Formats: sequence, C-alpha cells, structure tokens
Amino acid sequence: MDYSNITTPTELKRLNINELDGLCATLRERIINVVEKNGGHLASNLGTVELIVALHYVYDCPKDKIIFDVGHQSYTHKILTGRGQAFDGLRQNGGISGFPQPEESEYDAFTAGHASTSLSVALGFAEAARRNNADDNVVAVIGDGALTGGMAYEALNAIGSEGLPITIVLNDNNMSISKNVGAMSKYLTRLRVSKKYVGMKNEIKRAVSIIPLFGDGILHVLEKGKSLLKRIILSNKMFEEMGISYYGPFDGHNVGELIRTFVQVKKKQGPSIVHIITDKGHGLKSAVTDPEHSHGISSVGTIGSDDFSAVLGEFLTEAAEKDNRVTAVTAAMAIGTGLEKFALAFPDKFKDVGIAEEHAVTYCAALAAGGLKPYFAVYSTFLQRGFDQIVHDVCIGNRAVTLCIDRAGVVGADGVTHQGVFDLSYLLPIPNMTVMCPTDGDEFRKMLDFSLGFNAPLALRYPKSYSQNRPHTEIVYGKWEQISVDKKSKVYVLCAGGRALDIALFAAESKKINVINARFVKPLDTEYLDGINKKGNIVITVEDNMRSGGFGMSVLQYFNSRGMLCKCAALAHDDMFIDDRDISSSLKKSGITSENLLSVVKSLE
Amino acid sequence: MDYSNITTPTELKRLNINELDGLCATLRERIINVVEKNGGHLASNLGTVELIVALHYVYDCPKDKIIFDVGHQSYTHKILTGRGQAFDGLRQNGGISGFPQPEESEYDAFTAGHASTSLSVALGFAEAARRNNADDNVVAVIGDGALTGGMAYEALNAIGSEGLPITIVLNDNNMSISKNVGAMSKYLTRLRVSKKYVGMKNEIKRAVSIIPLFGDGILHVLEKGKSLLKRIILSNKMFEEMGISYYGPFDGHNVGELIRTFVQVKKKQGPSIVHIITDKGHGLKSAVTDPEHSHGISSVGTIGSDDFSAVLGEFLTEAAEKDNRVTAVTAAMAIGTGLEKFALAFPDKFKDVGIAEEHAVTYCAALAAGGLKPYFAVYSTFLQRGFDQIVHDVCIGNRAVTLCIDRAGVVGADGVTHQGVFDLSYLLPIPNMTVMCPTDGDEFRKMLDFSLGFNAPLALRYPKSYSQNRPHTEIVYGKWEQISVDKKSKVYVLCAGGRALDIALFAAESKKINVINARFVKPLDTEYLDGINKKGNIVITVEDNMRSGGFGMSVLQYFNSRGMLCKCAALAHDDMFIDDRDISSSLKKSGITSENLLSVVKSLE
Repeated sequence: MDYSNITTPTELKRLNINELDGLCATLRERIINVVEKNGGHLASNLGTVELIVALHYVYDCPKDKIIFDVGHQSYTHKILTGRGQAFDGLRQNGGISGFPQPEESEYDAFTAGHASTSLSVALGFAEAARRNNADDNVVAVIGDGALTGGMAYEALNAIGSEGLPITIVLNDNNMSISKNVGAMSKYLTRLRVSKKYVGMKNEIKRAVSIIPLFGDGILHVLEKGKSLLKRIILSNKMFEEMGISYYGPFDGHNVGELIRTFVQVKKKQGPSIVHIITDKGHGLKSAVTDPEHSHGISSVGTIGSDDFSAVLGEFLTEAAEKDNRVTAVTAAMAIGTGLEKFALAFPDKFKDVGIAEEHAVTYCAALAAGGLKPYFAVYSTFLQRGFDQIVHDVCIGNRAVTLCIDRAGVVGADGVTHQGVFDLSYLLPIPNMTVMCPTDGDEFRKMLDFSLGFNAPLALRYPKSYSQNRPHTEIVYGKWEQISVDKKSKVYVLCAGGRALDIALFAAESKKINVINARFVKPLDTEYLDGINKKGNIVITVEDNMRSGGFGMSVLQYFNSRGMLCKCAALAHDDMFIDDRDISSSLKKSGITSENLLSVVKSLE
Repeated sequence: MDYSNITTPTELKRLNINELDGLCATLRERIINVVEKNGGHLASNLGTVELIVALHYVYDCPKDKIIFDVGHQSYTHKILTGRGQAFDGLRQNGGISGFPQPEESEYDAFTAGHASTSLSVALGFAEAARRNNADDNVVAVIGDGALTGGMAYEALNAIGSEGLPITIVLNDNNMSISKNVGAMSKYLTRLRVSKKYVGMKNEIKRAVSIIPLFGDGILHVLEKGKSLLKRIILSNKMFEEMGISYYGPFDGHNVGELIRTFVQVKKKQGPSIVHIITDKGHGLKSAVTDPEHSHGISSVGTIGSDDFSAVLGEFLTEAAEKDNRVTAVTAAMAIGTGLEKFALAFPDKFKDVGIAEEHAVTYCAALAAGGLKPYFAVYSTFLQRGFDQIVHDVCIGNRAVTLCIDRAGVVGADGVTHQGVFDLSYLLPIPNMTVMCPTDGDEFRKMLDFSLGFNAPLALRYPKSYSQNRPHTEIVYGKWEQISVDKKSKVYVLCAGGRALDIALFAAESKKINVINARFVKPLDTEYLDGINKKGNIVITVEDNMRSGGFGMSVLQYFNSRGMLCKCAALAHDDMFIDDRDISSSLKKSGITSENLLSVVKSLE
C-alpha cells in the first residue's frame, strides 16, 4: 500500500492500526530524504515518528493542542497536518520552518525553538480551556534533555497544583548514555523494566556509538550531570504525590501500544505523564549503510575549520594546559560550541550543566569568585535565558566570567526562534561589561589571549563562521583597528564583527572608504571617534544585531554627546522578526549589505 | 550578661552554648529596633537569628563561605561580622546594605538580592575549592520560597551529580500555609514529625494570622501552588537518591540542636541538606503587643493611595467583573503589585505561580493564545528572569500579554540588586512589543482601559508611586500628550513616566519650556518628533532607565534617521551600578534632576 498520500489527520484516522507501521516506514523514509537534502534534525525526528502518528490517531487537532518542546522533533507532525508536499521546502527560504509555527499552520499550536517551555504552554492552554468551558485536550511532548531546564520544574510545580487535565509525554532517549550506573539501575528496577526494554537499550547504545562524532569517551563526559534530577523526578511515586498520574515506560516505537495508552489517558481527569522510551536514531542503521545517507546526520554539529567554535576549542585546550584556572562550561552545547576536544582532554575542567543557562551563568560567576577562569560557551539566542544572572551575579560583583557567545547575528535555517540578534542590545546597558566582536579566527585567538589576563566580565560575540583570516594588530583595551585606510576618503565604516567587515571590504572594492574593525563594541574607542567627528565626514556603523540598543546607536549617542559634526548612519536589523532561512537573505532584509552601505553613503554625501 | 558587644565570629565562639540564647534575644531586639526605624525585612530576619548564630559558631568565615539566597535574611550575619555599629545605618544612604555585598565585607561571600541563586553559587565555590585544593566549607541558606525558582533545580541537578561537599540549609517557614492538606500530611508523616514539631506548626499559624495584612482567606489564595514541588523534592528518599544526604527537620530556633547538627554535617563528605523549620516572625508576638513595634512590620508591603499598584488592583478587579477573559498572574508578589484584593475577589482568575518568572511569562503567552487576557504583575528587576520568554513565547507569536512592570526605575532602599533600570533597554529591541509609561494613577487607569482592547504584547512600566494625578487626554496608539505648551519656547522636554514629568514640570517653573508626556516609548510619536525637528529647537528626553538602549537613544536615532536639525540630549542613567538607598540621590547621581535639565538646556542654547 502507498502511504505517501496520507497527509492529514483525517486520512490517518481512516487507516487500520495494522497499517500504521507501513505509514511510519514511509514517513521515516520521507524524513531521511528531505533532511539529507535540506539539513535539519534527523535523529530526533526518526525517534518520534510512531509517537506523533499515535497522537494524531487518538487526538483531534487543531481543536486538541499538541505542544512540542523545542519543536525540532515535529517533522512527522508537519507531514501529517497538510504539509506533506511543503515538506520538500523544509528549512528553505519560502519553505516551511523546522520548528512549529502557528503562522504556518493552525495545527502548530504554539511557537517553539527554545527548550523547556512546553509545560508552561500546556498549562496556559488547559487553563484557557477550563475558563472557556471547552473540552480541548492538551498534550505536551517534552524530551528528557529539556527536563534539565529550570522552567520545566516551575511549570511542573504549577501543573501539580492546578490539577488540570494535561498529558505530558516524556520522550526519553537518554537512557543509555549516563555515567551514573548505580542510580540508573535503581531507576530501571523501580520502573519495572522488561527484558525487551533492556534489549532495546543496548541497541540504542550501539546505534549511537556508530556515529563517529560521538566516541565512547565523549558520550560519558558530555552527558555527565545532565539527567540526574530527571531520573529522580521520574520516580513513579513522586509524580503520584504531585497529583500527576504516571504511565510507563512504554516502547516509543510500538505504535499500537502508544495508541492504546493515549486512548486510556485521554479519558482520565487531572494531569498525566506518559513516559516513553525512544531511540533517537530509530531506523538510522539502514540509512547509515548507505554512504549518501550518512551525510544528513553528520552535517548537524560538524565544525569547519572556518568556524569560530574550532578556534575556541583549540585555544581553551592549549590554555588549560598552561593555566590551571581555565574552566569551560556549556549548557548542552559542547559539540556546537567547539568544546568536545576540551572535554576529552580536561574532563576535570569541563562542565556540561545540561539545558540550564541560568545556573550556568551564576555558577561561572562563583567559579570566578573562587579564583578560577570560567568560559561559558553558549549560543546567543540561548544566553537570553541567563540575562538576569549576567546582571545580578556576574556584573554587579564584577566577576571575571568570559561569555563566548556563538551563533550571534542571524543564523539561517533554524529561523526566527534562533536569531542571535539581541545580545548587543541586552549586554551594552549592563555596567562593568566589556563586549568584543572578533572578525576572524586569528583575531578571536588574540581576543581569547587577551581574556586570560582580563579580570572583569567579558563577552565575545561571533557568528558560526568567518570568511578568511586577516593580519591583525594586538588587542589593546578599548582600541579599534584600522583595516584599510584611504586618506582622501571622508567615509569611515565601523564594523562590529566579521560579517560587517566582509560587507565593508566588498564595498571598498568599488568606492574609496576607510574600514575600521570596531573590535570593542563596549567600551567604544572614543579617541578614534573624536578623531573622525568632523564636518564633511560620513560614519557608517555595520552590525548584525538589532538597531535598538546596538553598536550604531551607541556610536551615535557618543557623537551626539560630544557635539555631532560628522554625518552618521547605522546598518543594523530593523524592528521585525526575521524568519529567512539563509544568512544572506536575512541580512539583505535589513539592508545589511555592501550595496546598501554604498547607497547609504551616497545619500549622505 | 550584656551580649551587645558580640559583633565578630571570634567573640561569638568564646561564648558557651548556654549563653547563646541570651545573645539571640539581644540580636532579635537589635534587629527589631533598627528595622522599626529604617524599614527592611523584619520577619525573615527574626526567623534566622538562631540559624546564623549556629552557623558562625561552627564555621570559620570568611574562609568558609555562607551563601544567603535572596539575602534579605542576613541581618544577624551582618551584626556578627563586624557590622554591629554600622547596623544602625541599615538601608540608609552611606550605610550598610540590606543584602549581602562583597564590597561591604569579606564575610559577604557573594552578591544576593534575587532569589534561587545560592545553590549555583555554592557549587561554584565548592568547585573552585576543589580545584584549588582548599578545604573551605560552603553553606547555602535557602528559603522554601526560593525553591520554586527553576534555577534552584538546575543547580540541585548539578550538585547531585558533582558530589562536592556543600551544605544546603533549607530554611522552611512555609509549612503552615499550604492549601494542600492531603499532600502536607503525607509529607509530615514521611519526615517523622514529633509532637513538638506539630505544636510549633500551630504556633506559626497563629503568629502569621495576627498580622493584619494576611487575612485567613488571602493566605490560602496567595500561597496556592507555591510549594508543591518543594514538598515532594524534600522527601528524604529523593535527596538520598540524588546523592544528597538529608538531615532533619530540626527546630530552627533551637540553637544547641542546630550547632550539634552542623558539627556533624561539617565532617561529612559530599552534599548535604539540613532541613530546618523556622517561624518567620519568631519573637514577633512580644513586639506586636507594643504598638510602636508593629509599624516596622506593616511598612513592608503596604500600598499607599499614590501607588500605581493600588490602581492596578482596583482596575483589574473592576475589569474582571465585566470581562471574563481578565486574568492576573504574579510571581510571589501579589501584595507588592497590588493584587491582594483581586485574589480574594476572583480566586479563579488569579494565579500566583511562586518565584517562577520564566514560567509566568510563557504561561501568560499561552493563556493569551487560548483567548484569555493575562496581566503579569511583576517588579522590573525580577522580570529580567523572563527576558527570553518575552522574546520567544510572547513577542514572536505576537501574544496579547500585558506586562505590568512595577518598581521600574531606581528603587531606593533595596539598592543595587533591585534597580529597575534595564527594562526599557531590554524591551525596546523586541519586535511586536509596545511600551508605555504612565505618569500618574489616572493615566495608568486610562492605559489599562486601552490595554483591554489591545491585541498584542504590551508593557506598562512604572515606579512604586506617583506624585499627583493630572488631567489627561485619551490614549491614542503611538501618540504623545502635551502637558504644558509655550509657543515662544524652543525647548521640548519629552518625559517617559511620572518621575521624568515631575522633573520637567519643576524645571518649567523657572524656565519656559514645552513639556511632553511621551506616554508611548515604543512606538515613538514620530509625527510629533518630525514637528519639533527644526533648527534652533532643543529636545531633551528624561527617563529613569539606563542611557544605553533607552528612550533617549531611541529618539536620537529617529532624529538622525530623518536628518537631525534640532539639538538633542538625554537625561538617563549613566553606565554604572547605583547603590544609593534613596530615590532622589539615585536620580541625582545620574543627573536626572530639574537642575541638570536646566543646565543641559543652557549648554545647548
């Protein structure tokens, strides 16, 4: 039977339960094919095919709400809710998002992208249904990783208290990769684990270990500390004491079992948790035997030689050999931020706290207070979670924490929820904070060198990659670097970071301009600014950040405070959310381009 | 014996255990006397006298670190660590802070002010000690309220995993005020409660109910949902499974018992939790029989008729009668934000989620998605915790959540950790966000009326109180209001909020200026700005927010984008943390005064 035309819940519900395995195989193949072409989250989506089929078989969306935590596991949901054809355009410009988006479909109940939000969202929907006297069912699908995030506990607390009918599906794919064997085996006993389940566990272990990126050592190091509280909190008794009925664990790839479970749970009053065990790469083995297919997997999380994260990892590994204070901290992003080698070389100086940015920031502040030299490597968009802690714990006490802010600026395919365009705006107003933007790997290395001797809060913010290394002067606190000077030109382009510099240098090929590497965004190089604040001069700032509160406004404010003589304009992101799926069109949308730079200069001349 | 000269740990350690009760009585009296004069947190400090005496008796600070969560309970610690005399200046300008401050004393191991940070801080110190081969002991003192904050769970997860020797003192004073009697009695059984303890519990209940502010009804409503997860997580077995040794519960007012416990715990390897039960107002009864003494208590949390929070409470209570969508949400700040009457009138439409700002923001976003009309009443400084959720869950999806941001601007006595001076800077860069600043209660009411029909994210930001009500025009989206017009004057003062308006109007008494109520900080009234952007005009913005990313920079940027013809300056907070303990000297420090306004105008004329 051909299942490829099953693309709505209505069509799905017409199938016999016996036909669903075939549907799942078809869906899995479709996901592998598209992710191979477009990139995306392969393993997590292969792990949730049966779950999502079962949910749509039992529940009636969009009346019923399925809330995906993080949302990167929603591909099957997208295919089955009218986006079967559109799925070809996954993560492409003009195509569908890799995350749930209410603007895209009424079946996507709520925005997702960041972790640990689904339980709060589910409670909000359940409360609204209660108040509206509606009988909508609300299901939250949350992975075990998201359960390290504090806000999930805040929400659990509330869910237990409120007693509203919410079904929490805990998608648990982390069972096999924990170091704490003692606690694990206790846990398994408590959850009445069958032989079949143990067999599955070993299979997962094998499947994971064939992915080259995840060696056996790194598995243990990276996952340490990630899941302790989850394992504890999962205890049957604990949920019952909280007033949350516990069901499980179930085989997350047995679609019949899942459907029978959800049919039962749907009838219950009050909150429930359905604990399912899934294999993140389910069905991956066959894909891996085909070399072409393996591409899609390894493209997620690989680090190129032109990635800033590669420099970070190398630098910190060398630095930790010489300097015992050096400590690398990450919040479940060891690979993406370039720390995997460091983790293997210095497991004692490496801390992966799980998805727990709030804890990570304050923990770093105390490490610094205790005389260590912490580097928190984090994606810009996720550091938003630690904003209060940067103010309250790092900057008020002037603690020497170095924030290595990766994926700053627009991020491309991950889209609107992952844009790193707010960090300059939320960091610049904080007293005691210094902010630098490296333009390439060599300069980043110099900045990291500088950071070792710098004894105050420091943020280094950079996108994923840079275009090329260029020669650089040494780092001097608060001083900028002239990249290309033309004494006849009255145009000065101040660049915050590599993307800005690339744009300026490309423009310099068609017009004589001075290009300045504004490597310190805070403090500004006021001596340099005073020097160019002259009648007839044109100063353009370029940054990959929101205009409001960004580098350009900071420069403008300084000129104005001194009596503004030059003309000044800023290329920065306008006041809108950008959901373009590639970096260049995202930058273009806000006019952060060489072309626009030249036309802005022209308009001021 | 006279214990009033015991003001260092060394002197304390010379006393016999039998003498400590006398010391505690002396300390209690001292705290009551000073708080009565200076204001501050009376009840929480009366609850921790014996605990802090016991800690300093057993541990050797500053080598050993005592980390106070929130830190408002550290008065005894301050008196006993060399600040016995200085305690007279508690919360006064030039005097000691009401919170731990490392700048103030080496005994204050870490900054505190916001909740739920102590466990992360303790783990950081313990890790640093391990790496430095130091044998410093680390003790975190955390109240049960702070245990609703998600970051405490993130830290617990890490503490359990790391296994370092940390002592967590859980100061539990919330035992008597929970609604969930079933779960409570189970919990009490599990913790092997003695008759003595139950007797104490009843006494606490009585002590609490004599404080007039806390009626019996409000107690239940306000505390609902606050402590469920805490109670569960406290289960003896659970901590043991996490690798954290559990001791308790102990009578937190039996100093001998506490000392014996800490002596034992200090010898243990690995993390421990010492669960103590305290009476928040211990010793208060005698104080209350003296009418003068009761003043100090009721001054914390009272709402004056000139407080914005009074207007919020009244408005929402009236609105909820007519509009079934209206829902009020708070994060453990029902009284301070003015919601106590609402809570009693509409318990079904009121949610106190405990100290859980992240959950609160996302929960509101989902309430809005479900068709309700949520108002999240929160202090500016604490909303920093919800920044990521405002971006990701409220604004990307354009959800009609109204943030009622109280205590915005400088806050006076609470000092540096509580300043609400960042909110404009972190809200203005977020697309889809509208930001308004009411200048008085009547205008606030108009804005709240406006909010009922407004279907997008909205922030209303205001300090605690306003000086007087003034007549106002109706609210029109994006339009400002002229307060005083002088057609001959070329000076335009744009005011964001009541404090700014007061400053401008006072200046207008000595110089002819135009005063504009810039009630919308986002979007700006660009039509008005275009009208005054003329050669010879002087435009001054006034705001109680950081300069970087604030209202003034937003106005400047707009003028610059249109070709700036007027002269422009901003009164705003400079790039420094302000720890002045009264509002006027805090504003003066940054030149946010009528005097400076006039001198800035003069300098531009």
